[in-house]
Amino acid sequence: MESVEKYLSEVLAEIKPLPAGELALGEALGAVLDGDVTALWALPAFDNSAMDGYAVLAADVAGASVDRPTILEVVGEIPAGDTAAHTVEPGTCMRIMTGAPMPDGADTVIPVEQTDGGSETVSIYQSAEPGASVRLAGGDARPGDLLLASGTRLGAVHLGLLAAGGRASVQARMLPRVTVISTGDELVDPGAELVRGQIWESNATMLAAAARHAGCPARRHPIVRDSIDAVLAAVEEALPDTDLLITTGGVSMGGEHDVVKAALGSLGTVTFRKVAMQPGMPQGFGVVGPASTPIFTLPGNPVSAYVSFCLFVVPALDALQGHTAGERGVSRTATLTEPVRSPPDKRSFLRGILDAASGRVAPVTGQASHQLASLARANALVIVPEPVTSLDAGSTVEVIELP
Amino acid sequence: MESVEKYLSEVLAEIKPLPAGELALGEALGAVLDGDVTALWALPAFDNSAMDGYAVLAADVAGASVDRPTILEVVGEIPAGDTAAHTVEPGTCMRIMTGAPMPDGADTVIPVEQTDGGSETVSIYQSAEPGASVRLAGGDARPGDLLLASGTRLGAVHLGLLAAGGRASVQARMLPRVTVISTGDELVDPGAELVRGQIWESNATMLAAAARHAGCPARRHPIVRDSIDAVLAAVEEALPDTDLLITTGGVSMGGEHDVVKAALGSLGTVTFRKVAMQPGMPQGFGVVGPASTPIFTLPGNPVSAYVSFCLFVVPALDALQGHTAGERGVSRTATLTEPVRSPPDKRSFLRGILDAASGRVAPVTGQASHQLASLARANALVIVPEPVTSLDAGSTVEVIELP
Repeated sequence: MESVEKYLSEVLAEIKPLPAGELALGEALGAVLDGDVTALWALPAFDNSAMDGYAVLAADVAGASVDRPTILEVVGEIPAGDTAAHTVEPGTCMRIMTGAPMPDGADTVIPVEQTDGGSETVSIYQSAEPGASVRLAGGDARPGDLLLASGTRLGAVHLGLLAAGGRASVQARMLPRVTVISTGDELVDPGAELVRGQIWESNATMLAAAARHAGCPARRHPIVRDSIDAVLAAVEEALPDTDLLITTGGVSMGGEHDVVKAALGSLGTVTFRKVAMQPGMPQGFGVVGPASTPIFTLPGNPVSAYVSFCLFVVPALDALQGHTAGERGVSRTATLTEPVRSPPDKRSFLRGILDAASGRVAPVTGQASHQLASLARANALVIVPEPVTSLDAGSTVEVIELP
Repeated sequence: MESVEKYLSEVLAEIKPLPAGELALGEALGAVLDGDVTALWALPAFDNSAMDGYAVLAADVAGASVDRPTILEVVGEIPAGDTAAHTVEPGTCMRIMTGAPMPDGADTVIPVEQTDGGSETVSIYQSAEPGASVRLAGGDARPGDLLLASGTRLGAVHLGLLAAGGRASVQARMLPRVTVISTGDELVDPGAELVRGQIWESNATMLAAAARHAGCPARRHPIVRDSIDAVLAAVEEALPDTDLLITTGGVSMGGEHDVVKAALGSLGTVTFRKVAMQPGMPQGFGVVGPASTPIFTLPGNPVSAYVSFCLFVVPALDALQGHTAGERGVSRTATLTEPVRSPPDKRSFLRGILDAASGRVAPVTGQASHQLASLARANALVIVPEPVTSLDAGSTVEVIELP
């Protein structure tokens, strides 16, 4: 058996980042920048008004007050979007809207609330420092400034900044497309009739949703029966529009029924390992197909499959975007409310309910790897290290918050 | 001016939850359950094997050891998905795969690793308690057990549990569909040519992405010019497939150029208010159209628009799913690294860089409401309460982590 860390590092070592491409901003949420983005133009591009008001020379209104207003001639109006050239001479002013370009000559904007709002002449009730209520060109960024560093995962504000800087697209690595294939003669689609011995398929539904929750486009492949040909056909069908492939089931110790193991063992670089953890010991990973697409063969038990997804698949998804592991792993310490047990020489990931405020974590009832209802009550995984076989209530443990 | 809390409570009071509908599991990620979900059948539905091995009577293998193995006749094999009836008599056993139904008569599974793996007869090397390696019917949930409570936001594991329970769909409120309309004669699509006085549109790109980041389907409406008719036409066009509408721009103090204010003031229940906050003072909200669709008229300054989105639109999106406010608001305290200033009688939401590990937060350079590049460097909002006009370095402040 190998350790969780060793297995994860072996997985990540085999993953090459996806090629970057030019993505339209509307499709780039969650994509990861390939290359620094610098400002091509100043932000703002021109001096403009921060307020609705009057563009004036500060010197003209130096003595203005409510009792002794300064009266200026209003020689025109500049709405936002006005592209004409304007000039303000001493003793005059122009009405100006938020975002409108400052006229030549003027150096200050007096907000409309500090005036009588006049249109031929205006009474100004307050003085202002030169530059007041003016947004200077380049005040947010100058040409050549670094706006976003290579490796940034693009969030909403980043996309807004790229748009504000005039870019309609960006060079980035998109979120990987995930396909999940559930295998097993015992599986029936949810909603269909069941006879004793069959179960409703849940892993592909769950893992495709987990991938979508991580931001990735993901789909559930139709159920695949326990035959080597069916497994190989499903993989072949999925590969052309898949960046990361997941199978579940068919990888335990039972020999001829472990069709995923049998099918994929001869394909690409897929190898099967025992990882010193519970749940999730039987793991398989490799790359297949012309694009060296990563494939995880996760255990069929739903809790094992989900824990494996969190520990191994999520870092692999990040690695496909050129991110190193750990970015999304939120772990903290908490205090156990109940004693727990753990098998020797395996790291346990027990399901627990973490109360973030008090820092206490209660293991849920039902820790077997088929107990999905128990997992659905949990919001955290409690880690029990390999050498430890029991922990008392009150022990401090490391926990991973579930997404 | 009204307080942030009063404005938010007025907004939420006007929002009716969307009607619930029957959603296919593949489309229900992030939807909110309308009604408790109970187990229709036992989970698991039948006693089944937790391991690949041999189904035996515990009494038959009571004395088994490596030195003195128990030898049993293997009378057949039960793969997963086998729907036939089988019976194990004392002195015999059946080979059984993980997940396969237990045969009548047997009460225990001996894992294959603890045997010689024989197919005619098998040597069993270890005894086991009755029930060992057997998953009992109902061991995860019994018929009628509460699986998921009404109001649960459906995550991946919840969807897996619904599938495992045989449901192909679920009664839930879907994530609201968002449309963002940017208004302004000064706006030009990113990537297009610009002349002095114009700027590239960024708010709709940013806010549609922010809505998608919150899980919602969202789209950016084409830029709308400063005309009342154009604004009304855009709203009318968006309404049929929109559950929450956002406009930006056109709501300041400038009179005839504030076309959003002029257009929407007469439509539905939209009213305009000053909220005691910076950025984001000018706010408008109401409901419009036959479905009483909520509409936010956010300020045109990008930082104001984004902060308003986080504070008001996100709780409104939750309310449309029947959730009360606060679910997603992650706030904590931190220590300021620099002194800050704030206008009197307004709550400031300064942009800062929070170091979660040390609990220190550094205000970014560039706190004006047009400085999107500064916002893009931030990961948190630092709250300065209304009465406070300055804080020293070292002060403890409340911060909101940005998504």
